[in-house]
Amino acid sequence: MSELTLRAKQLDAADELAPLRSRFALDDVVYLDGNSLGALPAHVPDRLADVVRREWGELRIRSWTESGWWTAPERIGDRIAPLVGAAPGQVVVGDSTSVNVFKALVGAVRLAGDDRTEILVDATTFPTDGYIAESAARLTGRTLRALTPEEVPGALGPRTAAVLLNHVDYRTGRLHDLPSLTAAIHAAGALAVWDLCHSAGALPVGLDEHGVDLAVGCTYKYLNGGPGSPAFLYVRRELQPRFDSPLPGWNSHADPFGMSPDYAPAPGAVRGRVGTPDILSMLALEAALDVWEGVGIDAVRAKSLALTDFFLECVSAYTEPGRVEPVTPAEHGRRGSQVSLRCADAGEVMKRLIEEGVVGDFRQPDVLRFGFTPLYTTFADAERAARTLAALLG
Amino acid sequence: MSELTLRAKQLDAADELAPLRSRFALDDVVYLDGNSLGALPAHVPDRLADVVRREWGELRIRSWTESGWWTAPERIGDRIAPLVGAAPGQVVVGDSTSVNVFKALVGAVRLAGDDRTEILVDATTFPTDGYIAESAARLTGRTLRALTPEEVPGALGPRTAAVLLNHVDYRTGRLHDLPSLTAAIHAAGALAVWDLCHSAGALPVGLDEHGVDLAVGCTYKYLNGGPGSPAFLYVRRELQPRFDSPLPGWNSHADPFGMSPDYAPAPGAVRGRVGTPDILSMLALEAALDVWEGVGIDAVRAKSLALTDFFLECVSAYTEPGRVEPVTPAEHGRRGSQVSLRCADAGEVMKRLIEEGVVGDFRQPDVLRFGFTPLYTTFADAERAARTLAALLG
Repeated sequence: MSELTLRAKQLDAADELAPLRSRFALDDVVYLDGNSLGALPAHVPDRLADVVRREWGELRIRSWTESGWWTAPERIGDRIAPLVGAAPGQVVVGDSTSVNVFKALVGAVRLAGDDRTEILVDATTFPTDGYIAESAARLTGRTLRALTPEEVPGALGPRTAAVLLNHVDYRTGRLHDLPSLTAAIHAAGALAVWDLCHSAGALPVGLDEHGVDLAVGCTYKYLNGGPGSPAFLYVRRELQPRFDSPLPGWNSHADPFGMSPDYAPAPGAVRGRVGTPDILSMLALEAALDVWEGVGIDAVRAKSLALTDFFLECVSAYTEPGRVEPVTPAEHGRRGSQVSLRCADAGEVMKRLIEEGVVGDFRQPDVLRFGFTPLYTTFADAERAARTLAALLG
Repeated sequence: MSELTLRAKQLDAADELAPLRSRFALDDVVYLDGNSLGALPAHVPDRLADVVRREWGELRIRSWTESGWWTAPERIGDRIAPLVGAAPGQVVVGDSTSVNVFKALVGAVRLAGDDRTEILVDATTFPTDGYIAESAARLTGRTLRALTPEEVPGALGPRTAAVLLNHVDYRTGRLHDLPSLTAAIHAAGALAVWDLCHSAGALPVGLDEHGVDLAVGCTYKYLNGGPGSPAFLYVRRELQPRFDSPLPGWNSHADPFGMSPDYAPAPGAVRGRVGTPDILSMLALEAALDVWEGVGIDAVRAKSLALTDFFLECVSAYTEPGRVEPVTPAEHGRRGSQVSLRCADAGEVMKRLIEEGVVGDFRQPDVLRFGFTPLYTTFADAERAARTLAALLG
């Protein structure tokens, strides 16, 4: 046994989160794509079968009240809230991330007022945020400027309405400095909108602590909610009474069953709802959140850093110098929960890695991505992934 | 056995669609709320269990390609298309009805051009359509005028951009004249946007035949897709190249995995997609559509009219004159697939009806709604519902 396989064994033996792996349906594959689609929590199939057979099949329409379907968006939002550092009543689940970016950004622009005419957006963002920001700017008559997160402080001014940033870059795995960027945005009198897709469930976010205004995030990555499970929207409590959604569907009405032709928004997080929630996906997500029982996000973060450190160490030890180049920052304060490696022929390399039972993914043009989900990824996984990669690269 | 129970028996015996009832999980309850939440198709639980356990649990990320997840929105759209009279490639599934109303209405206004400054909306519509129309008008700088469908022809003019109408009124069950209203809208040079929530799967719509421009609809009523299953959007083929979505998420990009910072819309129905589709809800819907195998929408319509005729006849025969008043038009050409009865104490009456095993629903202020889903509702159901109602009313 090599020194690193032995180290992996010791690290796994000492890992307090190790027992959580049994809460998931996993096999011999080294699954390092939980930053794209989280693994299946083992108890979700039985719960969803009950939702389908009994709640839909037997109770039918009665389940909207008797099975708590109607209040699921805000109830599940409150389950996610502690993982992103939010007190209850500020997070609501529903719609896709893209749709929530639209609500958040148009809402932010309206909160900022008419004399603030510019939106800033992270130019390195996952593309959908940029596309939606462009639409939000066009529909609200604002201009849009794309720039790197580093350039944001220098670009802020009295005309800045809102800034849309990613907490962790989807491609490089770089963690941006949410507290200081939010403070800079506030100092300019603008609103900070954060996309937490690659940080929710992976590391502490501290939405309330840092005074973030609005945030959106995805639930099918580190929150393991299932393919395309509904996204979430956070609106800071003090802003809620003035939050003016561009998608004021009947679910956000103060009295939805009053069926009034006049719109009157509900108070609280419910104001971020739109139409009828997709119950099957939503209740699968609710069940998936049970795996967090007794788990603190700080412990998750500590293991995430240990895993990515160890993976980088193994890659460095096993791989010929120059064959891959880490893109993810070495500094802990700038690293999310994934490791991206630049590599020639990355597409072909990932294809072969997957054939060898190590699942990461490929991002154009030359990036191998490996996501580390501390709830179920082991140090042995990290070592095996690095060893398999090195063997492939020859 | 009374004359009407005998008639019900004979009608059920002669009903060619009667065997379809066995495709659903039903019990002794008379379920007349399929216009709110369709009953569970019997094979859906097993299919969804496979999606969860094997496609998500075992194949994980590979299912986006290997299990056909990525193309589900347009594939399922093409399954719905024949039921609403659309050729393939014009319907896409995803998001809620409210979100699709927003896409359709903003898209229609943009197609109409800048010199058309007014949107007309059905004042009797399900409220969400009115709320969203108000938001669409506000964001596109148009005015919004609410009026009854009868008033639409007289209100059309050179400034009309688009008209949003309901095919069947959710409260009264009244069917509006889609062909003639669409023709009048087109004669004024405006675009017709139809909400098919209460007609898709209940009666022939003829979207292509009547030249409808855009349409939206729900899949959890007469299409039995499950609670909150994703809605659909129809964009007429000739308009697709100019359809300019206000929600241009990455799923609507011509090359979504190219991850380009510049937006370039996909051709065809895919342009109506937004973010990552909620796969669990979507594949439950896909399975649910199997119940339509070998079923024509004309036969469904014929049975729907026979059922509602028979129910009205039974109500009239069993109930003291004046206790209830049908709100739904008697004329076939103006009737959807539900019967609404005005009734004193309607809320309390419906509560007691449900206790007696007859499930309809109550709409403010005084309406009892009974939905008839020809795929599984029997004439015996109609007779028993009327008899139970009459007994309750004393």
